[in-house]
Amino acid sequence: MRKLKLIISYKGTNFCGFQKQVGLRTVQGELETALSSVLNCETAIFGAGRTDAGVHALGQVAHFETESKIPADAFVNILNNVLPQDVSVVSCMEADNTFHARFSAKQKTYEYKMYLSKVRFPLLDEQILQVPFGINIENMQKACEYLVGTKDFACFMASGVKVKDTIRTIYSCNIKQENNIVTFSITGRSFLYNMVRIICGVLLRVGDGTLTPEDVQKIIKNKKRPRTKTLPSRGLTLISVEY
Amino acid sequence: MRKLKLIISYKGTNFCGFQKQVGLRTVQGELETALSSVLNCETAIFGAGRTDAGVHALGQVAHFETESKIPADAFVNILNNVLPQDVSVVSCMEADNTFHARFSAKQKTYEYKMYLSKVRFPLLDEQILQVPFGINIENMQKACEYLVGTKDFACFMASGVKVKDTIRTIYSCNIKQENNIVTFSITGRSFLYNMVRIICGVLLRVGDGTLTPEDVQKIIKNKKRPRTKTLPSRGLTLISVEY
Repeated sequence: MRKLKLIISYKGTNFCGFQKQVGLRTVQGELETALSSVLNCETAIFGAGRTDAGVHALGQVAHFETESKIPADAFVNILNNVLPQDVSVVSCMEADNTFHARFSAKQKTYEYKMYLSKVRFPLLDEQILQVPFGINIENMQKACEYLVGTKDFACFMASGVKVKDTIRTIYSCNIKQENNIVTFSITGRSFLYNMVRIICGVLLRVGDGTLTPEDVQKIIKNKKRPRTKTLPSRGLTLISVEY
Repeated sequence: MRKLKLIISYKGTNFCGFQKQVGLRTVQGELETALSSVLNCETAIFGAGRTDAGVHALGQVAHFETESKIPADAFVNILNNVLPQDVSVVSCMEADNTFHARFSAKQKTYEYKMYLSKVRFPLLDEQILQVPFGINIENMQKACEYLVGTKDFACFMASGVKVKDTIRTIYSCNIKQENNIVTFSITGRSFLYNMVRIICGVLLRVGDGTLTPEDVQKIIKNKKRPRTKTLPSRGLTLISVEY
């Protein structure tokens, strides 16, 4: 059996997330349908991570196994011809037999985009969170620095989720502003459920002055979910998965 | 009666164009519904131009008349609260009694965006035309220069349209590339039906070498619609209307 690695891009708006669910439109579901029809054989896809409903991806990774002799390169066009417009295969390459899209992943980078304006921006509305007030980017950047490292991030996990080990490693975390678009980017070994969107909700409160950058350090130490909002999925994009 | 000028932004994807049509979802229809409900009085809106189905706008302009005493500024939030997500009012200001969104317009600027890649880009797919081959930007820019001026542009009008006067004035016309996104922008007094999308189709053939820049000059002189494609509406955005 050959193993093939796919890099996938999608607009999450009209998907009920990455992971296959009976009766719902999912990225994995669309990919498996496309691949199975092309290969004329039921074929399962294993993704690097399960993005939520509404979350986008520029560089999601998945792998599949096949007996087919189709060259890896050729899968790009073959799959894109049958996939719907909101998902596309960016590349396809041979992978080592030990490769696993999820378990071999070394780090992932996510971005969350905010649009600073009193008026929403219809052209990007599905990919950006409109923030109708001013925010202090310097304070948000200071807060970002408290997030870097290997720490217990229990405070940034969606309530009701049961995970034994809430220790995660964040390699980098930055916020930058270009005109009125603010981009938060975070790279980590792996993330807790809803972790990035919860962090963004906390940072936004640092931005508007409700919290100080040092409060973020205290929140992490307390290990209790703060009363800030989990920001909506539409601002979030999985940028890349590194191996 | 007061006259008010609105600047409007919308994502055209899910609209059957700007102009009101019975039974269809249009930008004008949504705006009039919102305005009439807010003012509690049937209120008509006059747009600067009728963008086609799928065409977007950053700075469409419209005006309306009202007896209401609501401050102009306040209409922005009031209308945005009742408008759907894919259209928003960017600003609202008092206008002179002689002002007419359509007849007072001095020039309009449109942009057409292309994405140079063999693979489509789902995150921008509704706002950009994927071009899966290389194009020569310098030749396209040379061709642009033949478009500037007051000329008979009969060759760039959709077939079947009856307009007596096909002379139009183009003030500027440029093409630029940033990474793999190519943006064509054109400013003119006014445009013939489908003119910008037909021009873009011709320029794309200059880009791929099927036509030379000088062929564009000949096409204009011939006054006959060339056999190039009218590019799809989704790449087109009305950027601004100047008065």
